[in-house]
Amino acid sequence: MSIDTRSVFKEAAAPRSLGLRRQPIAALGPHDVLVRIHSASICGTDLHIYKWNEWAAHSYRPPLPLGHEFGGTVVGTGAAVTRVHAGDIVSAETHLPCGECRQCRLGRGHTCDNLRLFSRMGLGCFADHTVVPEALLRLVPDGIAVDFATMMEPLGVSVRAVTEVSVTGANVLVVGCGPIGLFAVAAARAYGAGRIMATDLAAYRRALAQRLGADVVADPARQSLGDAMPAQLAREKFDVVIETSGSEQAFQDALAQTRKGGDIVFASLPERSFSIDMARHVILGEITLRGVYGRRLDQTWLQVETLLRTHGPQLAQVMTHRLPLADFDAAFALAASGEAGKVVLQP
Amino acid sequence: MSIDTRSVFKEAAAPRSLGLRRQPIAALGPHDVLVRIHSASICGTDLHIYKWNEWAAHSYRPPLPLGHEFGGTVVGTGAAVTRVHAGDIVSAETHLPCGECRQCRLGRGHTCDNLRLFSRMGLGCFADHTVVPEALLRLVPDGIAVDFATMMEPLGVSVRAVTEVSVTGANVLVVGCGPIGLFAVAAARAYGAGRIMATDLAAYRRALAQRLGADVVADPARQSLGDAMPAQLAREKFDVVIETSGSEQAFQDALAQTRKGGDIVFASLPERSFSIDMARHVILGEITLRGVYGRRLDQTWLQVETLLRTHGPQLAQVMTHRLPLADFDAAFALAASGEAGKVVLQP
Amino acid sequence: MSIDTRSVFKEAAAPRSLGLRRQPIAALGPHDVLVRIHSASICGTDLHIYKWNEWAAHSYRPPLPLGHEFGGTVVGTGAAVTRVHAGDIVSAETHLPCGECRQCRLGRGHTCDNLRLFSRMGLGCFADHTVVPEALLRLVPDGIAVDFATMMEPLGVSVRAVTEVSVTGANVLVVGCGPIGLFAVAAARAYGAGRIMATDLAAYRRALAQRLGADVVADPARQSLGDAMPAQLAREKFDVVIETSGSEQAFQDALAQTRKGGDIVFASLPERSFSIDMARHVILGEITLRGVYGRRLDQTWLQVETLLRTHGPQLAQVMTHRLPLADFDAAFALAASGEAGKVVLQP
Amino acid sequence: MSIDTRSVFKEAAAPRSLGLRRQPIAALGPHDVLVRIHSASICGTDLHIYKWNEWAAHSYRPPLPLGHEFGGTVVGTGAAVTRVHAGDIVSAETHLPCGECRQCRLGRGHTCDNLRLFSRMGLGCFADHTVVPEALLRLVPDGIAVDFATMMEPLGVSVRAVTEVSVTGANVLVVGCGPIGLFAVAAARAYGAGRIMATDLAAYRRALAQRLGADVVADPARQSLGDAMPAQLAREKFDVVIETSGSEQAFQDALAQTRKGGDIVFASLPERSFSIDMARHVILGEITLRGVYGRRLDQTWLQVETLLRTHGPQLAQVMTHRLPLADFDAAFALAASGEAGKVVLQP
Repeated sequence: MSIDTRSVFKEAAAPRSLGLRRQPIAALGPHDVLVRIHSASICGTDLHIYKWNEWAAHSYRPPLPLGHEFGGTVVGTGAAVTRVHAGDIVSAETHLPCGECRQCRLGRGHTCDNLRLFSRMGLGCFADHTVVPEALLRLVPDGIAVDFATMMEPLGVSVRAVTEVSVTGANVLVVGCGPIGLFAVAAARAYGAGRIMATDLAAYRRALAQRLGADVVADPARQSLGDAMPAQLAREKFDVVIETSGSEQAFQDALAQTRKGGDIVFASLPERSFSIDMARHVILGEITLRGVYGRRLDQTWLQVETLLRTHGPQLAQVMTHRLPLADFDAAFALAASGEAGKVVLQP
Repeated sequence: MSIDTRSVFKEAAAPRSLGLRRQPIAALGPHDVLVRIHSASICGTDLHIYKWNEWAAHSYRPPLPLGHEFGGTVVGTGAAVTRVHAGDIVSAETHLPCGECRQCRLGRGHTCDNLRLFSRMGLGCFADHTVVPEALLRLVPDGIAVDFATMMEPLGVSVRAVTEVSVTGANVLVVGCGPIGLFAVAAARAYGAGRIMATDLAAYRRALAQRLGADVVADPARQSLGDAMPAQLAREKFDVVIETSGSEQAFQDALAQTRKGGDIVFASLPERSFSIDMARHVILGEITLRGVYGRRLDQTWLQVETLLRTHGPQLAQVMTHRLPLADFDAAFALAASGEAGKVVLQP
Repeated sequence: MSIDTRSVFKEAAAPRSLGLRRQPIAALGPHDVLVRIHSASICGTDLHIYKWNEWAAHSYRPPLPLGHEFGGTVVGTGAAVTRVHAGDIVSAETHLPCGECRQCRLGRGHTCDNLRLFSRMGLGCFADHTVVPEALLRLVPDGIAVDFATMMEPLGVSVRAVTEVSVTGANVLVVGCGPIGLFAVAAARAYGAGRIMATDLAAYRRALAQRLGADVVADPARQSLGDAMPAQLAREKFDVVIETSGSEQAFQDALAQTRKGGDIVFASLPERSFSIDMARHVILGEITLRGVYGRRLDQTWLQVETLLRTHGPQLAQVMTHRLPLADFDAAFALAASGEAGKVVLQP
Repeated sequence: MSIDTRSVFKEAAAPRSLGLRRQPIAALGPHDVLVRIHSASICGTDLHIYKWNEWAAHSYRPPLPLGHEFGGTVVGTGAAVTRVHAGDIVSAETHLPCGECRQCRLGRGHTCDNLRLFSRMGLGCFADHTVVPEALLRLVPDGIAVDFATMMEPLGVSVRAVTEVSVTGANVLVVGCGPIGLFAVAAARAYGAGRIMATDLAAYRRALAQRLGADVVADPARQSLGDAMPAQLAREKFDVVIETSGSEQAFQDALAQTRKGGDIVFASLPERSFSIDMARHVILGEITLRGVYGRRLDQTWLQVETLLRTHGPQLAQVMTHRLPLADFDAAFALAASGEAGKVVLQP
């Protein structure tokens, strides 16, 4: 199994600085699986590394290969691999729990105390091929197009956020219409939300949110959330807020428009602390603030599989651009621009 | 029904400034009930008015009668009253929902959009007699001593906080050992918590918390929370935090010692905003912050009734002092000192 | 207010035996509301009385007026009525809780120990006008066509059944495609069910179930449930079963096809006891059997309002026939035939 | 590692027919762990095999070694074992999930589609030593006496049943006071139940139930459940029933005394089907019937650990008899007599 692969690398500790390397694939370890990439999509972490912001500079040391969301085909398996076989269509979870710690014993493997991250394993999927530990792979079941498989991991974040509370019949606000927000709009619509409102600074993304099921969209730069809410929504306020923007101002606006007893779910990673008037908003209003991180293993994956079967083409609208692997620079620029949903690279 | 009552009044817009007035009871309206007070207890709101802090100065205009936690006996009923009768032992809810608004229709009458508060009805229960709308009264069932009835309302706040999450088998931290914190310790113990830790600045209250069921207590002025936690607790951290202190520092310490996926319930009313590192603590740690306000109507009352029947004498330890009504000045000074649990006035 | 109304009566203790009476409306009591009926629909209870089965013969004594599902307009109000006004569009709950009993205090007014039923108040809504206690009326909010208001009460039964468990992403079986089953199919589809299968003996109703969102339908007279299930469903089995048929055989078939840990919700009223192999199916399979009765007050009404706003025209397909009030005999025959969904009478 | 062990065997396909064999321990497989038994307790399955009832005759083929509840010390480990070490105090789960099937992916490993049972692995723990797959072992944490470790597995069944619903403040009926019922009484008491009633035919076990926390006990042979219920309980009925008897009559009595909206949890394995009047009891009464099987992996184990730390000596009262291994015949006779709680064998 001596094959070469092209892989996109972060080459230097500076903004942008991407390059395409060609290198041989090392021999597979007993639990490794060789996957031929069909599509791979750019996520927020990749963009942080691309922009080389403070967090990225603190966390990574180039050169490193990029990419962890993908769909592909198994083409080789290590000696101890039993669960997947050559020819299987697969996607991958990016968090590997230990199975032994207190979090794992509580059924919370996704926040395992010894969690191993795919993005730190020195592998990347913006490539022709990649190598993945068997335990991370998820079979893409019949009825889901291989084209859709690269959506499974990020869609899982949104499905997790939306299912952590009850959106059935609820007035839902989605703050931020990046891919996580867009998937959240689509999932809330699929799961029976009443009215859905979505906000984003970019007109392109607001329009996309409407196609995915938002009843109302607003531009926070143009008018306050309260002013943008239709009359009945202004009376009833939001039962559920899904916060994906990381913006404190957007959060404060949302908090003020959440009904007593409502839920705010954080699927973002704000860069700064928020100042929160606990008494007035959270306590007298009996509001619940919930952080979520990653997907429940494997309940969220099962929900994602079903959602893709029932609403695949609708969800696929989030993948707005597909570029050849060699156009990685254009792809990253596009993903960073706000004029795109998910940007997908295809070898 | 021409009887007089003595009542404790806030007499002037200044600290302390309490006085005892004697005045006739007005004729009962059709839905009014005349209650002879057996015991009445001083709560946090009463203390704010006593100290005349900023919030009290903003919210009230003396003279006004004080007190809303009580146990007593029905001695007269308005023409339309059907649910209680002379001789009945009663306590009272202090929140009256409208029954028609969206919150009420959601089963959340305790946060009714048109909530009427007993403490703003111009009545008080630090008195020989008071008049209460029938809808606020709660019959004290057989098996609960009349002495215990004045605990029902404040105990309800703690029971609500503790039952909003699952404390069964949980490591529980109670922040602050005023009456709400003390009742929370006792309720968590009764409901099967694993280890209970409690913190307070006052040695008197820490000792009381231990008698009520805390396994470990700590003085936040002497050592950090982390340093005070026993080894196993330090490994496992807290599953549940009940915050009753309103202190930001105490909250930050608690947040840092809450396990991933844990719950923090706010049963306090902090005077200032908190600065919260959402990404690091709430989101990556998947922690849930919940505000609670008041009692669920009437689920919490039913739970309180049962808890008083099964653990009445244990809970009664929170009522550390009983004084005659005429000693209202001493009673308030004691309640404000930190050297007391609940202070009770008896006509 | 001296007006006459026509009303459909059960005239005699025998099958059918319906008649149309004309009589004056009595003076309104203080809490009464006079409603001009726009549409009224025939429900299962009405059909039992029409057919005069054992249960009906045991429970009712003719003559009695029929009908309790309706939409209409307020045209007169008693002296103490405050919540509705002439011109309001209304529907009605049919269960009136006391507000005081233990069930009511538990937040379970819909199973109040002193429940009063509209169908036993001597009033009927297959009529030009009817009189309804204010407390039963529900305002039909803006955005819901008056035509749809008569669906609110029966739709509430189905919404309650479907929301008692989680259908999000679930494989759902709806047993029986009468109006309750049909509404359940539509609600499960709206609330994000994965695959929905529905069974009924009548081809007419199976076809209707498909239009409302069932992926697969089957005729239990033609093939076993297991044989009718598509391959993937046969592997995964049902997460949720909504039983609306009352048939023991249908229940047994469903039980055998429910996955371990699945839920079966009963929204039917079987006439005979069921023999259940608890060990094999319920215990080793960890299956939960839940009975539901009526609507949660008022959470279910709020959910119904939202569902009608978002999916009104889809749901309206269940109302397959509209007949003039004078054609009551034809309407009942049609409703009893299985060749109809909801049959609606219009004055 | 050439050591001998004595082990209790079922020797023949007939009632009783137990014998003590001495045999060498085979070489450990890579994932095997050798455990020196400290205590081992007799469970219901062992008694079925002892009595050789229909189910046992259908399921097993002698000779076979008996016993699967134990506490002991690790004395040897296979080459691939990493999680336990010589000297560790251990108990064992008896169900081994595959980790890959749909049940496992749903977080329901305890009902895994490919579940492997310790009791069918040809090993037994009524012995000096036994061999256990590493994956089944559970470390007994500090703070739990080795004497108590053999209670962990059966206690887990009761904890699971009691935590599947909310017993906090609830009126709880425990039907049957064998070890599972007795542990359920103790767990319900520890977890804050209001009133607890327990029933059993044996006076010995009823007395034990009272020591463990039952407020009221009754003998179903002497009086009906309804007659035995104290006045307030008769008014309120049971919120929760834990059924451990397998008796249809006992279940029917319990069902009739469950309040509307109450829960019945089955932790028994009835030998025959039950005839249930679904309409009258389950549906009009909105009662939920839940089957539970085994322990949640590992949430229930964590709850058991905590419960043993906080209530160990109280729970240890269930272990009424300790006999030397050689007295296995007497031990089984005692366990079968009804005049015992848990019977423990010690090498």
